[in-house]
Amino acid sequence: MDKILNISKYIDHTLLKPEATSANIEKLCQEALTYGFAAVCVNPVYVKYAHSLLINSEVAVCTVVGFPLGANTKQTKSNEARDALKDGATEIDMVIQIGALKSGEYTTVEDDVRAVISTCREFGAICKTIIETALLTDREKQKACELAAKSGANFVKTSTGFASAGATEHDVVLMSSAVKRYSTGVKAAGGIRSYEDAVKMINAGATRIGTSSGVKIVTESKES
Amino acid sequence: MDKILNISKYIDHTLLKPEATSANIEKLCQEALTYGFAAVCVNPVYVKYAHSLLINSEVAVCTVVGFPLGANTKQTKSNEARDALKDGATEIDMVIQIGALKSGEYTTVEDDVRAVISTCREFGAICKTIIETALLTDREKQKACELAAKSGANFVKTSTGFASAGATEHDVVLMSSAVKRYSTGVKAAGGIRSYEDAVKMINAGATRIGTSSGVKIVTESKES
Repeated sequence: MDKILNISKYIDHTLLKPEATSANIEKLCQEALTYGFAAVCVNPVYVKYAHSLLINSEVAVCTVVGFPLGANTKQTKSNEARDALKDGATEIDMVIQIGALKSGEYTTVEDDVRAVISTCREFGAICKTIIETALLTDREKQKACELAAKSGANFVKTSTGFASAGATEHDVVLMSSAVKRYSTGVKAAGGIRSYEDAVKMINAGATRIGTSSGVKIVTESKES
Repeated sequence: MDKILNISKYIDHTLLKPEATSANIEKLCQEALTYGFAAVCVNPVYVKYAHSLLINSEVAVCTVVGFPLGANTKQTKSNEARDALKDGATEIDMVIQIGALKSGEYTTVEDDVRAVISTCREFGAICKTIIETALLTDREKQKACELAAKSGANFVKTSTGFASAGATEHDVVLMSSAVKRYSTGVKAAGGIRSYEDAVKMINAGATRIGTSSGVKIVTESKES
């Protein structure tokens, strides 16, 4: 296994459980500062609080939009993104309209993605597009990545963590290949619980890792 | 088992899977017309389409807001409700801010619920408040019901169908008792897959049933 130097910088330290409390978010942010993670990823209702805890640090505040089903209107997604960006988020992970993709309604999928990306651009923020691989065929995964990349997504992201399965090496390879022509990263998320899992994803092409096991992963990286 | 007359009128015929297509929604609406269900329950992105198929019928269009995590800001929930009501929804099932409830931040929970109810009132629409019983203690379930009922919710609803468990007889009894002083109904949802399940919930105090098995339930009711 190739050792990954400074794995912290790959990690979006994530807590999206609906029952998460302010105290849980405070702990998450404290850990992000201690370990130097790329970002914390929290639900919209906690963006303002996380921002207040991480202000003047190098840890970004990431939030989720249209999450985890993606079946919200593009107006809702775009407005939710705007509110979060005003509250201090600088990274937005949005879920695509999965049903439209599966029906071949590609213009709908693209318009939806572009609406959120355009809002992110106004704030100079990063937009990641979650395609929810567990629900897609390989052909649909490829198409979703192409639509997102050509619309200007900064990352394509495998999973919400709320579907029946999370990131796989197969999907990360497929997605990296699909966005190769663009300057689009790949975020692997869902079920990444160890340093070994994280290294596998990075070797497969992931440039960011979404996980709730960041502290464990960094600890294991130092022991390896 | 007591026979329930006209069980169709209890049923919100529900399809909230993220991968649902327009064709699936068309079938859902057609079934709702055939069987005379109370409502269809669809994701926000399909409200306009469902409304166009059900216009001039007695079947209501119900949608979900802040769903299924409830961890969206009250502005997002309220705006999402408003957009859906403009698109033709007449019933809104919103998820409470679960983390705030668990922290004892009751004013936050109440403000959030009231924001959506107030928007529903403007349109003369029904508001159901989902408390997600699977994540709560009995004391928290009771508190959530009291907050929702005194804020004017038309129904308290057990579950999103996306948590680890759905409706139970125990919870329906508890919730019915908690809202007894108010004119608030109880919607049982999550895991109700047979006529027997539905009758149990109604006998426990449910006044509405959310299920994706409506056709099966009605068919079984005629055989019983």
